[in-house]
Parts: sequence; C-alpha cells; structure tokens
Amino acid sequence: MGTDKRPIGIFDSGIGGLTVLKEIEKRLPCESLIYFGDTARVPYGNKSRQTVIRFTTENILFLLKKRVKLIVIACNTSSSLALKYVRKIFKIPILGVIKPAVEKAIKVSKGKRIGVIGTKSTIASRAYEEELKRKDRNSLIFSRPCPLLVPFIEEGLIRSLLLEDLVKFYLKDLKGKIDTLILGCTHYPLIKNVIASYLKGVCIIDSAKEVAINTKRILEENGLLANSRNVSHKEFYVTDDPQNFFKLAKLFLKKNIENPKLVNV
Amino acid sequence: MGTDKRPIGIFDSGIGGLTVLKEIEKRLPCESLIYFGDTARVPYGNKSRQTVIRFTTENILFLLKKRVKLIVIACNTSSSLALKYVRKIFKIPILGVIKPAVEKAIKVSKGKRIGVIGTKSTIASRAYEEELKRKDRNSLIFSRPCPLLVPFIEEGLIRSLLLEDLVKFYLKDLKGKIDTLILGCTHYPLIKNVIASYLKGVCIIDSAKEVAINTKRILEENGLLANSRNVSHKEFYVTDDPQNFFKLAKLFLKKNIENPKLVNV
Repeated sequence: MGTDKRPIGIFDSGIGGLTVLKEIEKRLPCESLIYFGDTARVPYGNKSRQTVIRFTTENILFLLKKRVKLIVIACNTSSSLALKYVRKIFKIPILGVIKPAVEKAIKVSKGKRIGVIGTKSTIASRAYEEELKRKDRNSLIFSRPCPLLVPFIEEGLIRSLLLEDLVKFYLKDLKGKIDTLILGCTHYPLIKNVIASYLKGVCIIDSAKEVAINTKRILEENGLLANSRNVSHKEFYVTDDPQNFFKLAKLFLKKNIENPKLVNV
Repeated sequence: MGTDKRPIGIFDSGIGGLTVLKEIEKRLPCESLIYFGDTARVPYGNKSRQTVIRFTTENILFLLKKRVKLIVIACNTSSSLALKYVRKIFKIPILGVIKPAVEKAIKVSKGKRIGVIGTKSTIASRAYEEELKRKDRNSLIFSRPCPLLVPFIEEGLIRSLLLEDLVKFYLKDLKGKIDTLILGCTHYPLIKNVIASYLKGVCIIDSAKEVAINTKRILEENGLLANSRNVSHKEFYVTDDPQNFFKLAKLFLKKNIENPKLVNV
C-alpha cells in the first residue's frame, strides 16, 4: 500500500485536458491533482515539433516545481511530438495519451480498420500510426487531420449545423472504411455525439478513461499511490486569464473548479 | 529631406500583418523593414488584455534591440488592447491599425452606418467603436466578433462553401443595416471577395493601405525618412517554424520572402 501524498501533475495546451482530469479524479479520489493549462499559447496543434517540445519542457519544469510525483501529458499534440524527448531527459514518470487509446482500439476493433483524427501536428507526427503498427502490424490505419474542430469547440459551437457540415467535410473519406475511430484530441469527446451520428456503427475511442486506468496502474507499480487517509486537493494554473478558464471549465466539467491561478512559464 | 537609414519594425501575432508590410513596401521603397511574427503564440484574438499587453511589450522590446525607428502594430488585437499602454511606456513612435481604418470609414460612409468585424478580443475592447464615436459622434456602429474566420483563413479554406456559410452566419445581422464595413483583422482582406459578394453594395475598408499612408506621414513629420540613396533590406523573424512561415508568406504575398529566422522573445 503506497503512501505518497505528492500530487499528480496534468497538463494540456488549454482546457481539453480537463476530460482526462475528470477520469483520473473518478478513479483515484485520494490523489491530489495539479492541472496546468497553457492558455496563453494555445493551440499547439498547428505548431512545429521544435516549438511543442519547448513548450512541453517548460510546462514540465513548472509542474516539477510543484513537487508532483507523476506527470500526465493530457494533450495529444504534446504526446505525439514531445513525449519521447521529455521521457529521455526527465527522471519523473511521464504518461502520454497515445498508447492507452491505441491499446483500447486494438482491443475493440473487429475488422482492424482503425481511423484516427487529430490536429495537424498530431497527424503529421504519425505517432498514432506507429503505435498502432507496433501493436498490430496487420491493422489498417486511416488518419485525418481536423484542424478546425478545436476552434469550433472552443467557440462553443458544438451543436450547430455548421459543425455538422464541418464534421462531414473532414470524415467523409473515412466513412465506410473504418470500424473504430480514435479521437486523437482531448477536445473531441465534447462533440462525440455529432461524430457518432455521422459515422453510425463505428466504435469511438476517447482516451481519457484509458489514460486514467493507466495512471492508476503506474502509480501502483511504482508504489506511488496515496492512501485513503490522504486529504486530497486540486489546484489549477493557467497562463492566460483565469476567469475565462474558470467559465470554460464549468462548461466542460459541469461543475465549478477551484479558482485557477495565473502563472508565467 | 530625412536621412534616417534605421528600419521600420512591423509586428503581428502571425502572418496577417504581411498585408500591411506589402503596402508599406509599395509606398516607402527606400525604407528597410523588419517583420516579426509571433507564430508560436498565435492567435492573440481570444486572449485577455493582460496577456496581449505582455506579448505586445515583449515584441516591441525585441524590435527595439533591432534598432528600429518606428513600430507598426499590424495586429488589430494588439492595437485594440495594448496600443495605449505601450505608447505610454515607450518613447519610440508606435502606430496601430485602428485609427487609419476609422478615418477612412468616416470619409467614405454616406449613411454613417458602419460595421466592424474582428476577433473576439478586438470587438470586446470596443476600440473601434470608441474611435468611431470620437471622430463622428452621430455615426451608428454595428460590431460583430467573427472568431472562426482566422482559423479558416490560416487553413487555406478561403474559397470553400463552408467559409461562405460561416460568413453568412456571422454577417447576417449586419446585412441591410450598414453601408460601410471595416475589416478589423489583418487576415480578412484575404476573404474580401466572399464578404463583398454576401454584403453587396457595402463599401469594405481594409486598413493596410491606410496604415501605410499614415506611416509615411509620420516618418515625414518626424524627419525619419530614409533617402533615395538608401539600400533598403528586409528581415523576417518568427517564434515558430520559419519554413512554415515562409510557405504561408508566399501564399499571402504571392512571392518569396527573405528566409525568416527563428527567435524567442
């Protein structure tokens, strides 16, 4: 039984990673959590590897100052472009969102025809494809960058006709070809309904749950769990206006979060 | 006759300010120009005043190190949220893009019913409205944030049906109410045709030309012009991948630019 009270650090380029926080909270209620959203520099999804690695490193250095015991990169772009690099240079256990989603997809896909959607940089990195091929070299992968979905979701246009048209525009080439679709961006679970209704019968994988399950396993394996007597707490840090984040978080989590604090990294 | 060889500094959050550079180049061929695009932190349009002021200050400090003689803020969001502040603290002449556009709009508008479109932060700042009211208190102003236009344009979706629908969605409330529309974002000139064809008969103001005219006047008034013997040059600096900027710039300017250099600010 572990007794490590130190918090888990979770970061995302913005608000999307809250879907991961929510699942971790559910499965690990005794753990303290520190969430960091790089809202001044969001989005990461169309920026270069070099820049995403710089941002990711800076975010991790910030979380290390908060004495976290494990870091979850709850951003697909960061996981795709920077995970390998930061794992090489930092001692702390670091989890990404790619592997858990891929494992789940391989498990549920019957025809091994798997689609992946994400930001431009995530798809260009081929991180999902490589992981899928590593796990099952016979699987067929269809990937599609959907760069405008994040701005639409951040605008709250999640039930509009415009969004339906955009989803159609992006997914028409995948329709009929796949039996499973990985949502390769932490924003996409918010429009899961729209995607599911266009891709009827396709199994849709959202990595948040899988990431939480993996986080628990790694804490267990490393003896890093907090025990049930731990009085857990949550802290939120952002690089742009905390009030704006507070309001968006309410929309995302359907409840109020602790007051976010403004920081520079 | 001025003889100041120092360059003019121009900055934008990204690529949009190249429309301003182009006009300055045309009117002031003897001047050297330094363009700075903050592509690692783009977009500014939905970020807070506090953050936009911080970014703007950092960009100006970078340009000052390059020994510029005048700074043009070719970004509507920066001009709207940060111009007043940076003018207070820096000695160097600083031009924004709001006033030139407003002067032009007042001049051409017959019915004094003027529309303004821009990013969320630009419109929320009311900078255009205040300037319009200052110049003509009887003018009627209709403003509308269009936060998704910049991502669409940066995606190159500038002739799609999706864009036409989006333009309709944003502009339907202005249609029939205005005789003049200010494009309050340096990206929008690229979709001027789509806007003009939806708002038939409306006079559309693009501030780039007006900013260039103002830049020339201010250099003259302050004895800062370079003379015709000056061998002018251009330099480009960006905070994210220079190659990506190079390609987009070609699309924007329809010619190659000098190789951009990567910098951190």
